[in-house]
Amino acid sequence: MSNTSRRAGNVPPSPIRKLMPFANASQKAGRKIYKINIGQPDIETPESFWNAVHKYPSKILAYGDARGLPEYTAELIKYYASAGIDTAAEEMIVTTGGSESIVFAMMVVADPGDEIIAFEPFYPNYNGYAAMADVKIVPVTTRPEDGYHLPPLAEIEAKITPKTKAILICSPNNPTGTVLTKAEMETIAKIAEKHDLFVISDEVYREFIYEGTHTSVLHIPAMKDRAILLDSISKRFSACGARLGCLICKNKTVIDAVWRLAQARLCPPTLEQIGATAVLKELNAGYFADMSEEYRRRRDAAFEEVSKIEGAFCMKPSGAFYMMVTLPIDDVEVFAKWMLTDFESNGETTMVAPGPGFYATKGKGANEARLAYVLREKDLRRAIQILGEGVKAYNHR
Amino acid sequence: MSNTSRRAGNVPPSPIRKLMPFANASQKAGRKIYKINIGQPDIETPESFWNAVHKYPSKILAYGDARGLPEYTAELIKYYASAGIDTAAEEMIVTTGGSESIVFAMMVVADPGDEIIAFEPFYPNYNGYAAMADVKIVPVTTRPEDGYHLPPLAEIEAKITPKTKAILICSPNNPTGTVLTKAEMETIAKIAEKHDLFVISDEVYREFIYEGTHTSVLHIPAMKDRAILLDSISKRFSACGARLGCLICKNKTVIDAVWRLAQARLCPPTLEQIGATAVLKELNAGYFADMSEEYRRRRDAAFEEVSKIEGAFCMKPSGAFYMMVTLPIDDVEVFAKWMLTDFESNGETTMVAPGPGFYATKGKGANEARLAYVLREKDLRRAIQILGEGVKAYNHR
Repeated sequence: MSNTSRRAGNVPPSPIRKLMPFANASQKAGRKIYKINIGQPDIETPESFWNAVHKYPSKILAYGDARGLPEYTAELIKYYASAGIDTAAEEMIVTTGGSESIVFAMMVVADPGDEIIAFEPFYPNYNGYAAMADVKIVPVTTRPEDGYHLPPLAEIEAKITPKTKAILICSPNNPTGTVLTKAEMETIAKIAEKHDLFVISDEVYREFIYEGTHTSVLHIPAMKDRAILLDSISKRFSACGARLGCLICKNKTVIDAVWRLAQARLCPPTLEQIGATAVLKELNAGYFADMSEEYRRRRDAAFEEVSKIEGAFCMKPSGAFYMMVTLPIDDVEVFAKWMLTDFESNGETTMVAPGPGFYATKGKGANEARLAYVLREKDLRRAIQILGEGVKAYNHR
Repeated sequence: MSNTSRRAGNVPPSPIRKLMPFANASQKAGRKIYKINIGQPDIETPESFWNAVHKYPSKILAYGDARGLPEYTAELIKYYASAGIDTAAEEMIVTTGGSESIVFAMMVVADPGDEIIAFEPFYPNYNGYAAMADVKIVPVTTRPEDGYHLPPLAEIEAKITPKTKAILICSPNNPTGTVLTKAEMETIAKIAEKHDLFVISDEVYREFIYEGTHTSVLHIPAMKDRAILLDSISKRFSACGARLGCLICKNKTVIDAVWRLAQARLCPPTLEQIGATAVLKELNAGYFADMSEEYRRRRDAAFEEVSKIEGAFCMKPSGAFYMMVTLPIDDVEVFAKWMLTDFESNGETTMVAPGPGFYATKGKGANEARLAYVLREKDLRRAIQILGEGVKAYNHR
């Protein structure tokens, strides 16, 4: 029988979702599970989105523009201006989720076999996108004790080869919550300049900032021609199922290539653009501040509860809605599964995302876990208290 | 400045859309354009789709299942059963448009540099998908005088090399309207078996059949483990902007790889699956018959009008809503542009898709054009009459 491709073999299953069968069995057995393993916010999608979708008067759901609906890109340009990012319609392609923007960026900067530097721990789906584009992600390790900030310059440059085409960054970061400082962004700019690399910047958590400010790749003038900004409305507007993202680049060769890729797949979904246009048009001045405040409270609560777990370690993260916690556990993959199959506290347990899935280097992350603080404060506290009980019970089992 | 990838350079702009600037200028100048250049149906999306979307009660647009919403796949299984295709949830992945299903299929069967056989003229976006997957489409030419049916076996086998991984077919065909016979499908099966190839079958026009019957790749038992069925609701339910397709394969290794790719991009859009589920649930027994009847009338009208153009040639196509017409024109690219910039008949003109964009072999299709009969009969007749007037005027200019 004919074989599937080598590339197909390289696509990893989602490490975040591989515990699902155990979670389902646990739920069937009557247990309540606090799911802080994935980044599905519990915040409602803005009413303006639903109103626009519910009232959409068209009778034919026709193809939209491959670049995105003009009325949507017009609103996006204003949104980016409010974030200090100056852009224009011809520098922007609306994509089907942030996912598509990453795949397009990788395909445009790199050929099969080429390399892209990424700082681990990183969002595991990057591995899937890299497999699609058949490019190699070369990890540079960041450390819990540094709050997952950039390692010394030399450690980054040591990984650059003639095949390196880009540096991929994510700030505020998934899974660590770390926000890169302006100085760090300038370091990245310097490396990119020196080694002639593109900088692919995943900024989907832009508004989720609890200390300091966000520096976009497009806030650094020196990066102008090298910067590829990736974005998504999934988290910002709690619309993960909308599959609406965008890619912005001021480099004409890049954006022209992305546009040709975009033409091949015809267009991003139309209805969601109608909804998202309304959201941006009617955006309340306090929307992001309120959301940010809610998540700051959750972060503080989560951090406080994690601090009570004996032997656990975590630097307080400044953004996104994740924290990477070092646990006094030898193999967190086994532990996370055990939490679902063997542990309960008054009929409840907690599901976390094991650390190794976020590392490309084998053996890394064995005692780390990602917590997503996407539950209300009370549930979140209870979830992490249960995690603490589980850690104790696991080590005394 | 850092360079974009070789692959990026291989992604062609859409040849169907490259006349757009001239069409826009012509419209601005006050001309009415009959657009029979693209396959955007004028039929309304079923009311059940809109009702479901307008009433969707959820407050959070959350991630759906990477395979598709279970309630949607359940309806798809019944739909395929009604088309004589026996399938199951574990053999199916809902995709973001038919586009994504093609990209996934190519990535899973072929590695960069591998080859996939396709019969030209073919849907030009296949070139874009092939560029994304970095695979090479090797064309086998079909001929107007054969009604674009398969050439002799030897011509197909002559193109097979050790790098060939699959044969890509499309029936009913875009751009020719040709429907492969059961005997032709069995020929494909034999070649696939002999050379150990996958068969990727684009069947998005399944219900658009005016003579004979449709043979699906999954109607051929011998293909069971080699067949990858690609589909989309874009044309069938006049929902091009929904971006909803699917991929079906009974080969476990293939479907497992597609599932891993699907996990990386998280999920197809949720709202459209809600709409499409309702469409399938409430599908009126006569829906496809009525639609098919409407398009059959249009095909007959279009064919009749084309027959009146002196020197034009076309075999009456049996399916889809396209016909490939041979015109008494030396360079149809120049002619199609001229129709927009220099020609008018009572303030009106017609826009067609030039043939060369549908061929991979340089120089082919110079006297062919694709007509999409997606207008009401009266408009369609007028559009083709104008085309005939244009041909005459062009040759006497």
